[in-house]
Amino acid sequence: MGKLTFIGLGLGDPKDITLKGLEALREADYVYLESYTSILVGQKPDDLREAYGIEVPFIEADRHLVEGGCEEMLGRATENNVCFCVVGDALCATTHTDLFLRARAKGIEVSVVHNASIMNAIACCGLHLYRFGETVSICFWDDSWKPDSYFDKIADNAKRGLHTLCLLDIKVKEQSVVNLMKGNEIYEPPRFMSVQTALEQLMEIDENRGSPGIVGKDSLVVGVARVGCQNQSIVFGRAEDVASDKASEKLGGPLHSLVVCAQGMEGLQEMEEEFVEQYRI
Amino acid sequence: MGKLTFIGLGLGDPKDITLKGLEALREADYVYLESYTSILVGQKPDDLREAYGIEVPFIEADRHLVEGGCEEMLGRATENNVCFCVVGDALCATTHTDLFLRARAKGIEVSVVHNASIMNAIACCGLHLYRFGETVSICFWDDSWKPDSYFDKIADNAKRGLHTLCLLDIKVKEQSVVNLMKGNEIYEPPRFMSVQTALEQLMEIDENRGSPGIVGKDSLVVGVARVGCQNQSIVFGRAEDVASDKASEKLGGPLHSLVVCAQGMEGLQEMEEEFVEQYRI
Repeated sequence: MGKLTFIGLGLGDPKDITLKGLEALREADYVYLESYTSILVGQKPDDLREAYGIEVPFIEADRHLVEGGCEEMLGRATENNVCFCVVGDALCATTHTDLFLRARAKGIEVSVVHNASIMNAIACCGLHLYRFGETVSICFWDDSWKPDSYFDKIADNAKRGLHTLCLLDIKVKEQSVVNLMKGNEIYEPPRFMSVQTALEQLMEIDENRGSPGIVGKDSLVVGVARVGCQNQSIVFGRAEDVASDKASEKLGGPLHSLVVCAQGMEGLQEMEEEFVEQYRI
Repeated sequence: MGKLTFIGLGLGDPKDITLKGLEALREADYVYLESYTSILVGQKPDDLREAYGIEVPFIEADRHLVEGGCEEMLGRATENNVCFCVVGDALCATTHTDLFLRARAKGIEVSVVHNASIMNAIACCGLHLYRFGETVSICFWDDSWKPDSYFDKIADNAKRGLHTLCLLDIKVKEQSVVNLMKGNEIYEPPRFMSVQTALEQLMEIDENRGSPGIVGKDSLVVGVARVGCQNQSIVFGRAEDVASDKASEKLGGPLHSLVVCAQGMEGLQEMEEEFVEQYRI
């Protein structure tokens, strides 16, 4: 009888794994490393494997593999001990709950080793977690596709006196339309949405809608980068200021996330304000 | 120069600590263990200390110590290496962000080691995290005090097609009014709110308000117990069924949490439904 263990790796570096996670990895016949919904910044699979002291090779589970059904992985898990590693917590992304169900349907024993994810670690910016509303995902725009439905959710949260955590798009191992059509296995360089890009999109939507400044120049936002890492960076202030080149420089490389603060009378509470002011740009 | 490290211990057992957390603990001169906002089920401070292989004694930081300002702890952290351990993530509770700020104000170097908390690990029940609205806390009622303001938030979430995570009350080291007045340091036995009690309160509020069944007998809810532990238990179904003695028996001991599911057209999504049906009572 095989088993499948979902392991959350945490947010920052190899030392963010839990003892329970490490123990499971050390007993694994096959280890898959999900690289589609998030990345462990600056860590290559082989570096991670060495840092954990694991002998078996880490198999990269990219979008192709995950959306293609992970049949190989599930097949192996019917007879072997397989670990599926995910940055952050193991079940935060929808794709993974699907995988969990399909493994169960095959009679595979499934277990989960939890870890921190941006969904709780965002508390590091000083805003209270219990004052966050629905989380949204902001995706890259291109010339023909400019979705903006997340804006309604941010507005809805703001009006209820709640903050919104915005998860920013990641494009890893994407093919250009030409390469996709020609069947060339050539991938574009990875792209990670920055706080600056996210704010530019949000401010554009705000202006187009003529809405009352949910994400206008003066709206208060918090930009965070590499939460949980040694070089974590947090910038707080007016949207226009946090979208500036100066703020971008301070935030540095990926991964970024953004918080749009609650508005109006119920905006920031005293202790929240005191906390985020440390990061004012 | 001293420092203060907030360490999230995770949810379940001693093996849920991260390597980073354990490393920090092993370098600590003083270790405080917060026992007020949560507990590591069934673990006594000394057991934990031994499980981690730490020599210095663990000082229990109860409500008295935490609300009393932690002056002793902060004083020590100005010159020593102090760790403050919290079950779950380190910054999920408001009290701890306050402590963070006060340490900073004293010029103490503060850092945070994140871990899983119920706020993200609740994804284990199969409901999608990005479909959760504002989290609420449900407190014990007594004869004279029956607060119900959390009900509005649950209703608000439900109407927006969002689930609500309800954190259930914990009373640790509480004094009776008589003992408090007399200054007797005699504490009541710890009390942990069960899913059954929470649902009874919610259904009573629902009935009193004559509201349209936000938490009526037929509303769908998920009760969870000991999330992240080996003996985790999950029960899904109609509120009346999940509040039954049969469900309570299945859930077992503390800690419990409750999810009130989104309602109406946007209730459960197909994959969520398939997932929670595993736990139908």
